[in-house]
Amino acid sequence: MPKPDRPASTAEVVSVGIIMNGVTGRMGSNQHLGRSLAAIRKQGGLALPDGRRIWPEPVLVGRNPVKLRDLAAQHGIERWTTNLDEALADPDLTVYFDAQVTSRRVESVRRAIEAGKHVYCEKPTAASLDDALSLAKLADQAGVKNGVVMDKLFLPGMVKLASLVRSGFFGRILSVKGDFGYWVFDGEWGTPQRPSWNYRLEDGGSIISDMYPHWRYVLDHVIAPVRSLVCRGATHLPTRLDENGNSYRATADDAAYGILELDGGIVATMNSSWDTRVHRDELFELQVDGTHGSAVAGLRNCRFQPRVGTPRAVWNPDVADPLNHRAGWQDLPDIEVYDNGFKQQWELFLRHVVVGDPFPWDLLEGAKGVQLAERAVTSWQERAWVDIPDLAL
Amino acid sequence: MPKPDRPASTAEVVSVGIIMNGVTGRMGSNQHLGRSLAAIRKQGGLALPDGRRIWPEPVLVGRNPVKLRDLAAQHGIERWTTNLDEALADPDLTVYFDAQVTSRRVESVRRAIEAGKHVYCEKPTAASLDDALSLAKLADQAGVKNGVVMDKLFLPGMVKLASLVRSGFFGRILSVKGDFGYWVFDGEWGTPQRPSWNYRLEDGGSIISDMYPHWRYVLDHVIAPVRSLVCRGATHLPTRLDENGNSYRATADDAAYGILELDGGIVATMNSSWDTRVHRDELFELQVDGTHGSAVAGLRNCRFQPRVGTPRAVWNPDVADPLNHRAGWQDLPDIEVYDNGFKQQWELFLRHVVVGDPFPWDLLEGAKGVQLAERAVTSWQERAWVDIPDLAL
Amino acid sequence: MPKPDRPASTAEVVSVGIIMNGVTGRMGSNQHLGRSLAAIRKQGGLALPDGRRIWPEPVLVGRNPVKLRDLAAQHGIERWTTNLDEALADPDLTVYFDAQVTSRRVESVRRAIEAGKHVYCEKPTAASLDDALSLAKLADQAGVKNGVVMDKLFLPGMVKLASLVRSGFFGRILSVKGDFGYWVFDGEWGTPQRPSWNYRLEDGGSIISDMYPHWRYVLDHVIAPVRSLVCRGATHLPTRLDENGNSYRATADDAAYGILELDGGIVATMNSSWDTRVHRDELFELQVDGTHGSAVAGLRNCRFQPRVGTPRAVWNPDVADPLNHRAGWQDLPDIEVYDNGFKQQWELFLRHVVVGDPFPWDLLEGAKGVQLAERAVTSWQERAWVDIPDLAL
Amino acid sequence: MPKPDRPASTAEVVSVGIIMNGVTGRMGSNQHLGRSLAAIRKQGGLALPDGRRIWPEPVLVGRNPVKLRDLAAQHGIERWTTNLDEALADPDLTVYFDAQVTSRRVESVRRAIEAGKHVYCEKPTAASLDDALSLAKLADQAGVKNGVVMDKLFLPGMVKLASLVRSGFFGRILSVKGDFGYWVFDGEWGTPQRPSWNYRLEDGGSIISDMYPHWRYVLDHVIAPVRSLVCRGATHLPTRLDENGNSYRATADDAAYGILELDGGIVATMNSSWDTRVHRDELFELQVDGTHGSAVAGLRNCRFQPRVGTPRAVWNPDVADPLNHRAGWQDLPDIEVYDNGFKQQWELFLRHVVVGDPFPWDLLEGAKGVQLAERAVTSWQERAWVDIPDLAL
Repeated sequence: MPKPDRPASTAEVVSVGIIMNGVTGRMGSNQHLGRSLAAIRKQGGLALPDGRRIWPEPVLVGRNPVKLRDLAAQHGIERWTTNLDEALADPDLTVYFDAQVTSRRVESVRRAIEAGKHVYCEKPTAASLDDALSLAKLADQAGVKNGVVMDKLFLPGMVKLASLVRSGFFGRILSVKGDFGYWVFDGEWGTPQRPSWNYRLEDGGSIISDMYPHWRYVLDHVIAPVRSLVCRGATHLPTRLDENGNSYRATADDAAYGILELDGGIVATMNSSWDTRVHRDELFELQVDGTHGSAVAGLRNCRFQPRVGTPRAVWNPDVADPLNHRAGWQDLPDIEVYDNGFKQQWELFLRHVVVGDPFPWDLLEGAKGVQLAERAVTSWQERAWVDIPDLAL
Repeated sequence: MPKPDRPASTAEVVSVGIIMNGVTGRMGSNQHLGRSLAAIRKQGGLALPDGRRIWPEPVLVGRNPVKLRDLAAQHGIERWTTNLDEALADPDLTVYFDAQVTSRRVESVRRAIEAGKHVYCEKPTAASLDDALSLAKLADQAGVKNGVVMDKLFLPGMVKLASLVRSGFFGRILSVKGDFGYWVFDGEWGTPQRPSWNYRLEDGGSIISDMYPHWRYVLDHVIAPVRSLVCRGATHLPTRLDENGNSYRATADDAAYGILELDGGIVATMNSSWDTRVHRDELFELQVDGTHGSAVAGLRNCRFQPRVGTPRAVWNPDVADPLNHRAGWQDLPDIEVYDNGFKQQWELFLRHVVVGDPFPWDLLEGAKGVQLAERAVTSWQERAWVDIPDLAL
Repeated sequence: MPKPDRPASTAEVVSVGIIMNGVTGRMGSNQHLGRSLAAIRKQGGLALPDGRRIWPEPVLVGRNPVKLRDLAAQHGIERWTTNLDEALADPDLTVYFDAQVTSRRVESVRRAIEAGKHVYCEKPTAASLDDALSLAKLADQAGVKNGVVMDKLFLPGMVKLASLVRSGFFGRILSVKGDFGYWVFDGEWGTPQRPSWNYRLEDGGSIISDMYPHWRYVLDHVIAPVRSLVCRGATHLPTRLDENGNSYRATADDAAYGILELDGGIVATMNSSWDTRVHRDELFELQVDGTHGSAVAGLRNCRFQPRVGTPRAVWNPDVADPLNHRAGWQDLPDIEVYDNGFKQQWELFLRHVVVGDPFPWDLLEGAKGVQLAERAVTSWQERAWVDIPDLAL
Repeated sequence: MPKPDRPASTAEVVSVGIIMNGVTGRMGSNQHLGRSLAAIRKQGGLALPDGRRIWPEPVLVGRNPVKLRDLAAQHGIERWTTNLDEALADPDLTVYFDAQVTSRRVESVRRAIEAGKHVYCEKPTAASLDDALSLAKLADQAGVKNGVVMDKLFLPGMVKLASLVRSGFFGRILSVKGDFGYWVFDGEWGTPQRPSWNYRLEDGGSIISDMYPHWRYVLDHVIAPVRSLVCRGATHLPTRLDENGNSYRATADDAAYGILELDGGIVATMNSSWDTRVHRDELFELQVDGTHGSAVAGLRNCRFQPRVGTPRAVWNPDVADPLNHRAGWQDLPDIEVYDNGFKQQWELFLRHVVVGDPFPWDLLEGAKGVQLAERAVTSWQERAWVDIPDLAL
C-alpha cells in the first residue's frame, strides 16, 4: 500500500509521534493501527476546530522484525524497531501506546511514564489492582496524560443507550439485566472459535478477567457507579480440544453470574458465558428498566418501550398470552454515523494530548476494571458479597 | 347451569366427598372448582383403568353464605356450609382441600388431618418452614394422603421442557436462566393489575414468598435439586396507589435476583420482578443450556436448539452480526393435548386417594417451597450464600 | 497468469513431482489442475504441522501438445510432454495421477505402479471388478501409496451429514432414501446438457457405471457398508439427438432404481435418473431416518429434524393437513469453511505421500465402487438380489 | 339429532334398504355412515338425471346394542339389529355393506351374496387372494352387483392427477415415484398415533397389507396396470409401547420398499414407512415423470411442470445450485368441488344398483389389491421379483 499523503502545508499540521508497542497482535494491528491510526492518516489527519490537523506518526515496536516490516509496509508507516529503549529515548515521540499481552504491560508503561511520555493502553492495565493503581499514581505524579481503551462505550448500541440515559427517558433507573455470551465450540462438535489459552488460567484465561473490566466501565459510565457485587464463576466444560485437536483441561472460568449494586439502589444482574446458546438478537444485551421507560441495548441496536407504550400484561397461565410482547418495542433510529469505536477513542485521546480536551477514561478508570474483576474472583472464592471501595490516587 | 348427570349406574361409580375451604376466592372458584372439579363432573367423572369412574362430590365451605350459595348453584353443587366443623365431622367427606389465605391455612389443615381427612392444599402451605414441616409430619403420622398444588409443573411449556430433560436431549445440563416478570402499573400511570396487598409485607405480600415456592418445585422436579442460593430482594417502587386510588407505602419486595446452585454443578439464575418490561415471548421463560442442546421454555411453548443446529457465533463488534440467532431455534411441536394444569393435578390426587397411584407432590415437597422462600429472605438480609439442607419427616 | 512464487527458502519446502495424465479433459483441467494443484501453488503450497510446506510440481501429460502448452501456460506450469514413458522414467516425479477415459486407465496406472510411482486416479478405476482389483493388488505388492478420487465425500452437504452421523444425532439409523437426477434434454426440446456418449453403452455410457461408484463410497463411508442390492435399470428415452442434432439410439441405461441392504439392518433406496424433473431443493438428496432424528442432505445443505422436533402427523385424508412439514426442519449451520472437495482430497493425498497421514480412500476402496456397479447390472439382468462380498487384496 | 326428512312425494323417490354391518367401528361410523349415507339423506337424497331421488335407508348391524342404538339415534336412523340373519332375510334390504374387521368379512359377504344381496365392502376384501377371488366369482355367478371401497381414487390430489393423465399432459409416462409415510411415535417419546395392533402380525397388522391394496388400485386405475414387483419389508422398530404404556414386540412390517413394473415399460418405486420423518408437502406424494411433463400429486394438491417449463439443471457440485427447483412447479387449481371420497363412491354405487351406471371397482378389482399385498410378502420372503398374473373370474 502506498504511504498516505501527509497534508502538504506544514503550517497547519500538528504531528504526534506515537510509539505503538505490541502492535503485531490481532487487536493491535487490526483495530489500533489499521482501523484507527492508519485510517486517520488515510482521511488526511484529524481536523481541529481551529483549522489545524493532527497527523499521527506511529513507530511500530515489537519483537519480530519480519512482522513489523510487513505491517509497516502495509500501512505506509516509515519507522519500526525492535528496540523499545531507543524509541523511548526519542523526544519527537510524545505518546506511548501499549497493546502487549497483559503480563508485559505494567513494566513497559512504567518505563514510558518515566521517560515522560503520555500513555494510552489496552485493558486490563495490569493483572492486579495494586499494579494498576500504581501505574495510575505514577502517571499522575509525572503529570503525563493517560488513557485506557474502553471501546464498548463507543459501540452504536451503547452510545444509543447512553443518550437515552442522559435524556431522562428512563425516569428513575431501577434495574439492569445484562446477558452476554454464546456457544464456543468445544472441538468435539465444531472447531472452537476462541483460542485455547482463554480457557487456561495459567495462560491468563478467564471470562471474568476478560469481561468484568468491560462491565465496570459500561455500568459506571452509562448507568451508575458500581458499589458491591456477588459473583459465581463456573467452569462448565472441564475439557476441550485445542488448536491441534488435542484434549486439554480447562482451568479457567468459562461462565460467571453476578449481581451488582449500583448507586441509587439500582440492582444489575450480569450473565457472562461461553457455554450458552443465543436466544437473543445480539451476543450482548443490556436491559435497563426505569420508572418511565425501558430499553434493551446490544452492540448495534437499542430498542425501547416508554411507560406510555407499556402493555397491560396479565399473568394467566390458562390461556396463550394474547400479547406480542416483542412487537411493543421500537428501534432507536440511527441518527448518527457510528465510526469504529477504537478510532473514535483514539481521536479523543489525540485531542486530549494536543489541545487538552477532556478525556475521562484514564488509568484510574482502567484500574477500576481490574478492581472489579479481582473482587469478583474474591466473591466467588469466599462465597460472599464484596464491596467495591472508591479508588483514589 | 344444570347439574351435571352423575353416571346412572351406581355400581361402577366411586364417589369422593371433598370439603373445599376458601373456595370463594379467585383461585379457588375459577381454577379448583370451575376448571377442575366441576369440569371433571361435566365430563362424566374421572375414568379409571378398571372401568370404574371417580365422581367428585364437593361441599363448599366459606364465611359468606351468599357467595357460597351462588357458586354452588353456578356449578350444580348440592352442598355448602359456613360451618367447617360440621363438614369435618361428616365421615362421607374424606378429602379436605384448602385455598384460604396463607395465614388461615395451617390451623385448618391441622384440624382436617386430626379429623382423619386426606388433605390437598394451595401453596405456600404455611408462612414459616417450621409450620409447613409440622403439617407434613402430622399428616405422615396420621397416615392420611396429602398433596400440595404445583400447577406450573403441568403447564404445556414446563411439560415440554421436562420431557426434553428426560429424553436426554441436553446431554449434561450446565446452567439455567430464569426470567419472570412484567410491569405492574403503579396507579399513577395505568390501573394496577395486581392487588395492593401483594406489595405490603404485613399483609403477606412479597414476590419472594409468592414465586420462590414455584421456583423450588420447578427446579427440583424438572432440572435438579436446589442446594444453595444467594438472593437479593428489592422494593424498586416504594409507593404505589391502591384499589381506591390512595397512595400507600410498599413494604414488600417487588423484585428478587437469585443465583442458585443445583445438583450436578448446575448454576441457575432467577430474575423475578413486577417492575420490568417484557422483551421476551412469554412472561416467564427458563433457558436451559446443556452440552448437547439448549431450550427456552415458557408457560406454553418450548423452543430448542440442538448442538448440531448451533451456529458459529463470532464476537466481532465491528460489523452487524450476520446471524439471525432467534431463527435458529425450533418450536417443540404440540404432540400431546394439554388439559388445564390444576385439573390434571386434581385428577392425579383423586386417583392417589382412590386407587393409590403415586403422587410425589406432598406436604413435604410443599414445605420445600416454603423453605426456599424463607432461606432467600435470610440470604438477602445477611448478604450471604445460604445452604438448603435436606428436609425429612 | 504469472507463475506462482515457490516459497523463497528451499530449506522448508518439500517439492512433489506429479505426472498428470489426461489433464486436458474437463475434470482434469478444471478440478484437478485449476482448482486443486494450481490453487495450492497460488496459496504458497500446503503447510505441514512441522512448519514445512509441500510444493506440488506438476508435469502435464496428454496427446495434444497445443492443449498441453496452453494449459501449462495458463497455470504457470513449467513442464508438459506427450511422452508418458519419458515422464515415468524421471525419478524426480514420484506421483502419477490419472484422469483419462476409463478405457485407458488400467494400462497406464499399471505402468506407473511398475515404475514405482505413487498413484492417484479418477473413478471408476477400471471397467471391470477384476481389473480394478488387480490394480489394487499390484499397488499393494509394489508398496506404493495409492488413492482414488471420492470427491462427493468432501461436499459440504455430505460433510455435514457425516458429522451428524458421527455425533450420534440419529440414534440407530433405520433407513436411507437417495434421490438423484434431473431432466437431461433429449435434443428435440432443449439442447442436451450431457454428452451423447453417456447414453451409448458401447462408448462407456450408463448411469449405473457413472453413479454407483459414488453411491458405494457415500454409503460405505458415511452410513454403513453395503451388503446386498437389487437394481432395476431402464432406458427410458430410447432415442436422443447428439451434439450435431442427429438422432441416435440410446443403448445405455439412463435411470436405475435400487434397494440396498447395509450393515445394521439399514435399508437404502437409491433413485438415479436423467429423466426426472426436480421437485427437490438439490439435484441429489439423501434422507436418513434414525430413532432419534432425521436429516436430508444435499450437495451443499443439510437439514435436520430431531426426535423432539418431530410433529404428530395424523393420516386424515378428509381435511387438508394442518402441519407445514417442511417448516419443521432446520438447516445445519455452516460452522466450517468448505474448500473445494477435489482440492481437499488432493491435500490429504499429498500429506499421505509426504508425511504418511492416513488416507483411507485407496485403490481397494475404488474397486468397491466398480464392484457395486457391476453387481447392480447383474441384478438387473438376472432380476435377482445379489450379494456384495467383501473384497480383499 | 332429528331424523332427516325423506322427500315428501313417494312417486319420485327410490328407497334402497342397506344392511350396514360393522358400522360401529371408526371407519364405518365416521366415513360410511356419517359422512356418506347420513350426509346423502341430509341433502335430501341422491338426485338422478330423470328427476327421481335415491333415498338410502340403512339398517345398522353389529354386536353391541348400546352402540348401535346411540349411533342410530345420532343419525336419525330407524332400524338397527344384532341379528344379521334377520336382516339378510328381509327382501326390502337389497344392499349389504361390510366394514367389519378383515377376518370376519369373507363369511358375512358370502352369506349376503347367497341371500341375493348386492354387496359393497371395505378393503382388503379378504386375508388371502384365494378367498378374495372366490368372493368375486360367487358374486359373478349370483349375478349380484358388487363393489369395493377405493376411496383414495376420489381424493382431490388423485383426481387431479388422473385428469392430467387422461389429458395427455405427460406424453409417454416413464416412471413413478411414490413416497408414503410419517413418524409414528413409539411411546417412549410421544404417544403413538396409531393403534398397537397395526404392529402385530398376529393381530392383522402390517404396513404391506394395509397400504399395498391402495397402491394397486391407484397405479392400475390412474397410471397403468401393475405386472411385477420386488419388495423389501422391514420392521425398523422392534419394540414399541402400547395403549397402556407397556412395551411389546412389533412382529409386523412397519416399512416396505418396492419397485414395480407397469404396462408400457413404466417403473414405479413405492416407499411406505411409519418410521420416516416428513420432508414433503403431504404425507403421501406420487411423482409421475413423462416425456412431455411431470407432476407431483398428494392427497389434496397436485403440482406440475410441463416440458416447456423444465429448467436446464446442470450438475456442478462446486457452486450452490443457482436454480430454485421447487419454484418451477405450479399448482393445478381447484377447478372442481371435491366432496368426501367415501360419499362420492357410495353415490356411484347406489346409481350402479338403481340405474345400472358403470362401476368398475368391483370385487375382482378388490381381489387385485389382496393379490399385490400377498405377492409383495412373497417377494420379500423369497428375495425375488414376482409376477402379478391377470386375475379372471
